[in-house]
Amino acid sequence: MASKKVYFFGGGKAEGSGAMKDILGGKGAGLAEMTKLGMPVPPGFTVSTEVCGLYCKNRGKLPADVKREIAANLAKLERTIGRKLGDPKNPLLVSVRSGARVSMPGMMNTILNLGLNDRSVEGLAGRSGNPRFAYDSYRRFLMMFSEVVLGLSRGRFEDLLDAKKRERGVADDVLLSADDMKELCRQFKALVRQLLKREFPQDPVSQLEMARDAVFRSWNNDRAKYYRRAHGIPGDTGTAATVQAMVFGNMGNDSAAGVGFTRNPSTGAKELYGEYLVNAQGEDVAAGVRTPHPIRDMKKEFPKVFDRLVRIAGKLESRFRDVQDFEFTVENNTLYLLQTRPGKRTAAAAVKIAVDMVKEKLIAREVALCRLEPRRIDHLLHPVIDPKGKYEVIARGLPASPGAATGAAVLHADRAVEWAAEGKDVILVRKETGPDDIHGMDAARGILTVKGGITSHAAVVARQMGKTCIAGCEAIGVDEVMRRFTVGGRVLREGDSLSLNGATGEVILGKAPLTAPRPDGSFGTFMSWADAVRRLSVRANADTPKDARWARESGAEGIGLCRTEHMFFAEDRLPVMREMILARTVEEREAALQKLLPMQREDFKGLYREMKGYPVTIRLLDPPLNEFLPGRDDLRVEVTKLELIHADRSIVEEKRVLLQRVEELHESNPMLGLRGCRLGICHPEITKMQVRAIFEAASEVMREGIRVQPEIMVPLVSMRSEMAAQKEIIVAVAEETMKRYKRMVPYAVGTMIELPRAALTADEIARDAEFFSFGTNDLTQTTYGFSRDDSGKFLRYYRNRSELCPRCGLKLGKDLSCEACGVTYPKPPGNILDADVFATLDQEGVGQLIRTGIRKGRAIRPNLEVGICGEHGGDPESVAFCHRSGLDYVSCSPCKVPVARLAAAQAVLREKAGAKDKTK
Amino acid sequence: MASKKVYFFGGGKAEGSGAMKDILGGKGAGLAEMTKLGMPVPPGFTVSTEVCGLYCKNRGKLPADVKREIAANLAKLERTIGRKLGDPKNPLLVSVRSGARVSMPGMMNTILNLGLNDRSVEGLAGRSGNPRFAYDSYRRFLMMFSEVVLGLSRGRFEDLLDAKKRERGVADDVLLSADDMKELCRQFKALVRQLLKREFPQDPVSQLEMARDAVFRSWNNDRAKYYRRAHGIPGDTGTAATVQAMVFGNMGNDSAAGVGFTRNPSTGAKELYGEYLVNAQGEDVAAGVRTPHPIRDMKKEFPKVFDRLVRIAGKLESRFRDVQDFEFTVENNTLYLLQTRPGKRTAAAAVKIAVDMVKEKLIAREVALCRLEPRRIDHLLHPVIDPKGKYEVIARGLPASPGAATGAAVLHADRAVEWAAEGKDVILVRKETGPDDIHGMDAARGILTVKGGITSHAAVVARQMGKTCIAGCEAIGVDEVMRRFTVGGRVLREGDSLSLNGATGEVILGKAPLTAPRPDGSFGTFMSWADAVRRLSVRANADTPKDARWARESGAEGIGLCRTEHMFFAEDRLPVMREMILARTVEEREAALQKLLPMQREDFKGLYREMKGYPVTIRLLDPPLNEFLPGRDDLRVEVTKLELIHADRSIVEEKRVLLQRVEELHESNPMLGLRGCRLGICHPEITKMQVRAIFEAASEVMREGIRVQPEIMVPLVSMRSEMAAQKEIIVAVAEETMKRYKRMVPYAVGTMIELPRAALTADEIARDAEFFSFGTNDLTQTTYGFSRDDSGKFLRYYRNRSELCPRCGLKLGKDLSCEACGVTYPKPPGNILDADVFATLDQEGVGQLIRTGIRKGRAIRPNLEVGICGEHGGDPESVAFCHRSGLDYVSCSPCKVPVARLAAAQAVLREKAGAKDKTK
Repeated sequence: MASKKVYFFGGGKAEGSGAMKDILGGKGAGLAEMTKLGMPVPPGFTVSTEVCGLYCKNRGKLPADVKREIAANLAKLERTIGRKLGDPKNPLLVSVRSGARVSMPGMMNTILNLGLNDRSVEGLAGRSGNPRFAYDSYRRFLMMFSEVVLGLSRGRFEDLLDAKKRERGVADDVLLSADDMKELCRQFKALVRQLLKREFPQDPVSQLEMARDAVFRSWNNDRAKYYRRAHGIPGDTGTAATVQAMVFGNMGNDSAAGVGFTRNPSTGAKELYGEYLVNAQGEDVAAGVRTPHPIRDMKKEFPKVFDRLVRIAGKLESRFRDVQDFEFTVENNTLYLLQTRPGKRTAAAAVKIAVDMVKEKLIAREVALCRLEPRRIDHLLHPVIDPKGKYEVIARGLPASPGAATGAAVLHADRAVEWAAEGKDVILVRKETGPDDIHGMDAARGILTVKGGITSHAAVVARQMGKTCIAGCEAIGVDEVMRRFTVGGRVLREGDSLSLNGATGEVILGKAPLTAPRPDGSFGTFMSWADAVRRLSVRANADTPKDARWARESGAEGIGLCRTEHMFFAEDRLPVMREMILARTVEEREAALQKLLPMQREDFKGLYREMKGYPVTIRLLDPPLNEFLPGRDDLRVEVTKLELIHADRSIVEEKRVLLQRVEELHESNPMLGLRGCRLGICHPEITKMQVRAIFEAASEVMREGIRVQPEIMVPLVSMRSEMAAQKEIIVAVAEETMKRYKRMVPYAVGTMIELPRAALTADEIARDAEFFSFGTNDLTQTTYGFSRDDSGKFLRYYRNRSELCPRCGLKLGKDLSCEACGVTYPKPPGNILDADVFATLDQEGVGQLIRTGIRKGRAIRPNLEVGICGEHGGDPESVAFCHRSGLDYVSCSPCKVPVARLAAAQAVLREKAGAKDKTK
Repeated sequence: MASKKVYFFGGGKAEGSGAMKDILGGKGAGLAEMTKLGMPVPPGFTVSTEVCGLYCKNRGKLPADVKREIAANLAKLERTIGRKLGDPKNPLLVSVRSGARVSMPGMMNTILNLGLNDRSVEGLAGRSGNPRFAYDSYRRFLMMFSEVVLGLSRGRFEDLLDAKKRERGVADDVLLSADDMKELCRQFKALVRQLLKREFPQDPVSQLEMARDAVFRSWNNDRAKYYRRAHGIPGDTGTAATVQAMVFGNMGNDSAAGVGFTRNPSTGAKELYGEYLVNAQGEDVAAGVRTPHPIRDMKKEFPKVFDRLVRIAGKLESRFRDVQDFEFTVENNTLYLLQTRPGKRTAAAAVKIAVDMVKEKLIAREVALCRLEPRRIDHLLHPVIDPKGKYEVIARGLPASPGAATGAAVLHADRAVEWAAEGKDVILVRKETGPDDIHGMDAARGILTVKGGITSHAAVVARQMGKTCIAGCEAIGVDEVMRRFTVGGRVLREGDSLSLNGATGEVILGKAPLTAPRPDGSFGTFMSWADAVRRLSVRANADTPKDARWARESGAEGIGLCRTEHMFFAEDRLPVMREMILARTVEEREAALQKLLPMQREDFKGLYREMKGYPVTIRLLDPPLNEFLPGRDDLRVEVTKLELIHADRSIVEEKRVLLQRVEELHESNPMLGLRGCRLGICHPEITKMQVRAIFEAASEVMREGIRVQPEIMVPLVSMRSEMAAQKEIIVAVAEETMKRYKRMVPYAVGTMIELPRAALTADEIARDAEFFSFGTNDLTQTTYGFSRDDSGKFLRYYRNRSELCPRCGLKLGKDLSCEACGVTYPKPPGNILDADVFATLDQEGVGQLIRTGIRKGRAIRPNLEVGICGEHGGDPESVAFCHRSGLDYVSCSPCKVPVARLAAAQAVLREKAGAKDKTK
């Protein structure tokens, strides 16, 4: 442990630097670096993240030496500024902010204007000659401290402020007078007294200690933990606390507070982007209390400041080599920078910026490729509102995050979560959003706010989440209590359908027409770089020519899984399929199969034509046959009814015969029953028909001059003997068909590895199988013993247990209390599972089987082709695992193909970085 | 490969020896050894098993050098005897017999009197001065050769014989005259001509070659393969063929043929046992054509021969150190031995003989312990007919194999198999049995034959199979065509119920009262030797005090699995259990659990009292809750009915509410759903109730001065976090309860390892689990993806595919033809599976997981206790695997405990033998 715990910055010098995010947090490190770069940063000091750890470990107490070190730095700050904390005449005011290694917007708590009390506020008024400013600052401090440190609800304070505005007949708090502010301060203090039965703390040193502790405590508050869990950030690092001398944007009309981005975080355009408020403090901008002005307006209002901002933006980018999101304050026409951090951006912006920065030689391609989380590519591919479509625009706001969203309007985050859990699409409509709304934003398709600008909480979070967002749509009036909102004269109720156009800021009534997005040229460049880097091949799961085309357009290099059964669910085929299943004799069954053969052949021809020589992996019939039949329960009820109403005997008899066959095929656990290769072994005629269709289609398409490369995949193999038995049939039919057509079709016969035993005995199976494809959906099912169809309920509990009452299962309050049971728990129970194992591969268990399977398979057949199909093939972490494990390809839904391509490239880069680290 | 392929014996010398079973087969080796021991063995030579391999490989042709070697030995035999094969005056007659390494009674084909033809039969008549004998020998030869070599049905020949006997008005063929025999020979030859359109082969050298080849071919006939598969004998060793000079038991009344056992194979008593027929050939005895006389009668009829037999029996035992089953022939008062082999015996006899031979210092204890296949212990424990019970004896036969059997009489082997497959108990009633009846005998509970004695085919096979058998019950007349049989005046039909008392030979009408068997003292001695040798501990699966008592009486050293759910299926508990499941609130659920608590507590007290300090492993609630509720389908039908008949609304409503809850709990694959520890995690109150019951019961029983040792087992764990979550609750409740009772209960908390992931991550799980118990039923299910409930159908096909038509699935004929499809297959498809993986552990796949689990578990917790529960714990091969894998114990049904004890001992002995082999 470093003995140094507190780092000073100010006057062009800093004890820390931009590289020390782990110790200083992002905020502290940014301030240190900007100070060193000679930028106008108010002085201050950062208490390191280590201290947060000590604080938590010592149950809220700090060691004496740490306290001494903090006191020494405070004294140094007082000397630098020439003011003293709590000095009634000329008080030093400070901000206290938290800052973890990774930026978590809105997650941590900030306190401004600390150091004010009933006496020093007078000193500030005197010194600034601006009593309104002094009391405005004091009421802000009272409000923030009460909320963040004392734990009181912000709403009660806002109510008082609103009442005052109503009383004075003004819409904006800048129009309140000094006396109004003074009166508000009195009211705020009275409110604290009333709620806590004690006075608001007047001693500035206590204020500072309490604020510092609140910062440390905030590391483990609910929303911080939620954010960390949602973003996979470890919980053991802690937050730093930065104490900084205040500068004031609320000193009058020559003062302002603002937020800037070095490039446009919505589109990626290279332009200074952001917004500001005159005579305001920073919190006003982010919280969306007033709707701010675009930053370009500063060119007129604060021309010199604007010029300096442009220069500083350039300097920040060339120093940090990434888009920066910075906060600034203008105090009496003087610019101060209060924070810089990597700017959160939409996926589209991320791609454009990454590609542009490579062109500008700011970063290398490898760095560019790591600038986008692969799963965010999804956002680029979300449909957008069709500009040629017809729709009714009922309001316009700021286009804060692009895309399109349609859903039922919901006015509260909790309800958004509830409705979404019921499967509804929802649009979260809020006056403004704050950290308490994050779970609702996560559940919503889009976010619409009345207040706040393009850098407001709602906007920043929505862009990061890839959700469509329209902010500052002031035409809307929200009535949370009555669960309705007005737009112009129109009254809409919760549940009414809305659409948002995030590209234009249009709020649309009802469901707007959608169209496919057209990513700009940067995307193609970006993906081509990814393709050049990755080693893993990427295929798609596609069952129809349409899907196959989509797969190719998405960059798939083959079909990794064609589920032939999907072809039989079509309306015109299901009856023939049923005929086949209900057949009593081989002859009947073969007759039905004869009808299916030409249908299958056409299916395969379509696939081959689309794939133009890329491999097409065709899985033989897999699901239990009863999936093609009516449900046993329904049929039983139907027969019972028909019997009771004395229906025509022939009808009853027909249904009875069907029921009897359904009963025969009924299985208690169809997932573990007669399916997969067991079908093809017990009914070889099915395999024969499918293989015949595969080779007839191949031969006919080859005649058209198109190359084909079928790979025939035997499902659900658990033993070599199963593979061998199916392979024997496949090869025999293949040879016979090729002979008949006088064509050699290049083909391979392999198997899904989707049962633990197949992985464990892969050496045996590889003697017959020419390729493996890990079917991780089923493999996860059997390795865990979790049925995908049934485990939802308990797996949801497994993943959320830490938020639920162990007694009744209801959601716990923030203080870990259960309202229903009236119990408060000392600690939450841990979650049983952190991730959805059906979405992200369980590397420890299932992954172990995959590695065993590969090792054993290649021991027998060194050039065995190995892939993975199933949901995990489109999950970035799982793709990285596949890369590390030496697979040849991943196969996923066409929509996930670009995600997999990027994830595969990043896996290579991360491996290289790891190797470099080791050689160091 | 040894260059020598043919081994001569005769005149007190032999080229082979008793140790050369692999090369000479059991028969050839026995003859060589007896020759060396100076016993009266007719000379001959053995063509080695290797030649059979060459024959099969060369598609029915023998290399020239082998042919030359055979010819040379034949010449030597002719010189030794002084007669020539085919000599019309003084012909050499030989027998040709097959003999594999392991004795397979009735499996291989024997031909006697080879060398006879239309001319040499006259020579034989002249030389012996006994034309009847000569033609009797010839008609026998014609019949056997036609059946075995030419593949004609024996029945047609027997019909002619029977017709002749009817014509002459005699019951026994010995009463037919020389002319009758001569006429029969003519008829037999005419029959061959009619059926084959060619003459019966007259050239003795061709006869010999054809017979030799038939022996080799018989290695791969259906019944041989069936026997090998049923007994786990590899198919790649082949059979030898022994050609031996004939001696004749059918030379007149001073001649005889018989079979002897050196001890009683039914009871194990030390006495010369067996039977013989005067003026007969050996085949007559085994085939049960006439019912023979007990061997003790020879004392009068052939006193010198009898004395010599007694001496020879003693010599055989001291040479072979095991019970011998030998064939002999008396030709004109001169004794000849034709075969010796280890005598098949009942399990009871095996134990008694093994123990007696140790006392007689013939064998060591270790050898004795290996003289009984562990699974045959079952036979010892089958119930027997209660001698004190009332029942009606309708006939008496020879007590050929002990025990008791009750079932429906069936007159054909195929129907026995069919009826048994439908779940019926059957008694196979046959005139006599032969190799074609084996599958029927296997399917039957007991066998009753009209003809044949205590060494007949029926008797020998039944004893080996552990089936009750009564032979030679001549009071019964079987009418196969009409499917009925008569006993005295009574007519019984197929399907009528019969009981057999194998100890007394009583045939009983209807179902006789049964009682538990009382194994004699040898059994106790034998098992105590096993216990002294084994390292594995043996526990039992027991859910009730009654089962626990049975377990202790069977020698179990604890309960390895108490399935607590079984306690809830009792009639008085199921309603309370349903209350618990249907509870809507925690309060309701806890109220129902409060009612279950005292019931569970009493259950556990009963178990602890029985086990008196031995460990009691209690598994927490495991099955899906819907197992306790009525079926969804039935309920739906019921509600539909009630609605349609406009039943009382309150009744409909009640059922509807129940249905709704059942629907909520419904799962597509309950085996992979909400069960096992998932229940206890989602509903901790259930775990709490069970643990409270465990510790309250323990505390209360300890008060009685009885030691207790509960081991609490968490089911279906797939992740450490599940184990940890349940352990936390268990420990908390345990501590609380022990505090309340002021008693320290020694206990352990562990888990079932029954999911692949648990085995793969056993190191993690062992951090919390203090013991492992491999639940191999479930582990097999998920490793293979086979549902126990559903896989029966296709697994049956997997195991019998080689006998089924690949096209229609019907059973193939012996010639691999399918009657239904009219196709004959060149080779049968291989089976997919050889064994029932739910009965015998799959060592390759599931076993791999077990070994991984043990290795990883012990790496973290070196003295981790590891056991196995489930069906495999009572399977000898699986027990041997458990021993080799280092498990601490196996747990199985109480009835299997003695099997497991012996299997565990044999595993140690086999390991020692292996180690000895290695040090050699």
